[in-house]
Amino acid sequence: MTRPKLEFVEVSPRDGLQNEPEIVSTDIKLKLIELILAAGFRRLEAGSFVNPSKVPQMADSPDVFARLRARADARFIALALNKRGVERALEAGAREINYVFCASDGFSIRNNGAPVAETLKVWPEVTALARAAGARLSATISTAFGCPFDGEVPVVQLARVAEAVCAHAPFEIAIADTIGVAAPTDVKARFEAVRAIAPAETALRAHFHNTRNTALANAVAAVECGVAILDGSLAGIGGCPFAPGAAGNVPTEDMLYMFERMGFDTGVDLDAAIEAARFIGAAFGKATPGMVSRAPRFPSAS
Amino acid sequence: MTRPKLEFVEVSPRDGLQNEPEIVSTDIKLKLIELILAAGFRRLEAGSFVNPSKVPQMADSPDVFARLRARADARFIALALNKRGVERALEAGAREINYVFCASDGFSIRNNGAPVAETLKVWPEVTALARAAGARLSATISTAFGCPFDGEVPVVQLARVAEAVCAHAPFEIAIADTIGVAAPTDVKARFEAVRAIAPAETALRAHFHNTRNTALANAVAAVECGVAILDGSLAGIGGCPFAPGAAGNVPTEDMLYMFERMGFDTGVDLDAAIEAARFIGAAFGKATPGMVSRAPRFPSAS
Repeated sequence: MTRPKLEFVEVSPRDGLQNEPEIVSTDIKLKLIELILAAGFRRLEAGSFVNPSKVPQMADSPDVFARLRARADARFIALALNKRGVERALEAGAREINYVFCASDGFSIRNNGAPVAETLKVWPEVTALARAAGARLSATISTAFGCPFDGEVPVVQLARVAEAVCAHAPFEIAIADTIGVAAPTDVKARFEAVRAIAPAETALRAHFHNTRNTALANAVAAVECGVAILDGSLAGIGGCPFAPGAAGNVPTEDMLYMFERMGFDTGVDLDAAIEAARFIGAAFGKATPGMVSRAPRFPSAS
Repeated sequence: MTRPKLEFVEVSPRDGLQNEPEIVSTDIKLKLIELILAAGFRRLEAGSFVNPSKVPQMADSPDVFARLRARADARFIALALNKRGVERALEAGAREINYVFCASDGFSIRNNGAPVAETLKVWPEVTALARAAGARLSATISTAFGCPFDGEVPVVQLARVAEAVCAHAPFEIAIADTIGVAAPTDVKARFEAVRAIAPAETALRAHFHNTRNTALANAVAAVECGVAILDGSLAGIGGCPFAPGAAGNVPTEDMLYMFERMGFDTGVDLDAAIEAARFIGAAFGKATPGMVSRAPRFPSAS
């Protein structure tokens, strides 16, 4: 029997590193990316084209993309929040861009510099830019499950943003639980709503944070809704503003362990993924939230 | 609409404290139990009647049960692994006993002192003892998802133990993922098998460890199978032999947050449960694995 496939998009080099206080060197980033590719991942966030004075962790993204330009065996995603970011990403040679909207005004004003409706105005131009350059363009809707400023984000509010985003047909829409508040019922309600809005050819991707320990349960719920593309961050790095050890991004290797046991083909070698996760922990010299890399192998290697 | 109910059995005073290297005083245990009761839990593991030289953390269990004897507003569970333990629990005034079997010989020999088949021989006597004393008797089958010594535990192997246990009709059977290796598909296969074996009047209870970050996903799977009784350990204490911060028991407050958001009536006040979890962290003076207690309240209190 063929095992059903899941695609894991590895976000540690961008969403992970961007949200850690330490800044790692470009060489460490590229070494991490090598380990990620060696484990079998074929798509990963490699950098973001945002204000380097606000996000110094990503100031070297042009250099990272320049050094990855020759690699044809994987897709490297460049994140952008505005038209200038898209232009810079394209100049740096990015072939896939992830453009981020928010579902809530509170977060949109602080993260994207304007309320949601305002940020959507540039979308036709951004899609045209990417298309003209022959680059793939996906969209993420962040704070889709809750906002740190506005609180609950109703499904209809997310649906309105999804509708506006779909009007210019990105090849994929990611729904993000930016602050890790979702439960599996929230996941099903939102993915069902967005699936009903998005064109059939638009893929859905799920992005979870494990802030409240619900991320793996949410990933299962997303997959049960037909989502086959999941973001993960090796070692669970990224987004730890609260306390040491408190997880941000869902640890990729923990999802790989679980979904492998559930009979899915992840395309990734778990042991190699654990090695990459441990490399991150060693690079930072601190305990990271991922758990499978700290537990004994089960069943033990024969 | 009435929300469906889930019963949370709080195991931090036994499975939690028993597996931490520090030994807390009897007064701290009773203070914790007070906080647990104040949060709304009505059933909890209060101690175990095992060899005190092997488990010094539980040496004061007779005293704990003596001091709880007057309380009629909750059920206090005493754990036992053999006939002598049941006798001692009954002498101490325990009104509910949880008797533990293993699904694998490797663990049974080390934890219960004999292979599984051997430990089952005393079961008729144990059930008769409890019945004669008018005490409630439940059974837990540990290592039901995997064994640290034998590796994988097939469903049929668990089913054979469940069949022998059901022959003397405990009011409840708990299935335990002692080393935290399960994925949701494992949960469904095992609870479906045990449900098919157990008498209709026998309740099923699920006991998960979060060693590999899968416990909340597993709890959702169990509830989807019709399980309505879940073990949890506030702050996630217990069973951390591997690394600091590596979770053992599934943190109760994290399950409460998730299942509340999923529309279940947990019977427990989340804020009071978080207070109890923080009391545990303060008593040990160390970071504990539970996550909701370290995250901002969502949505924020109005």
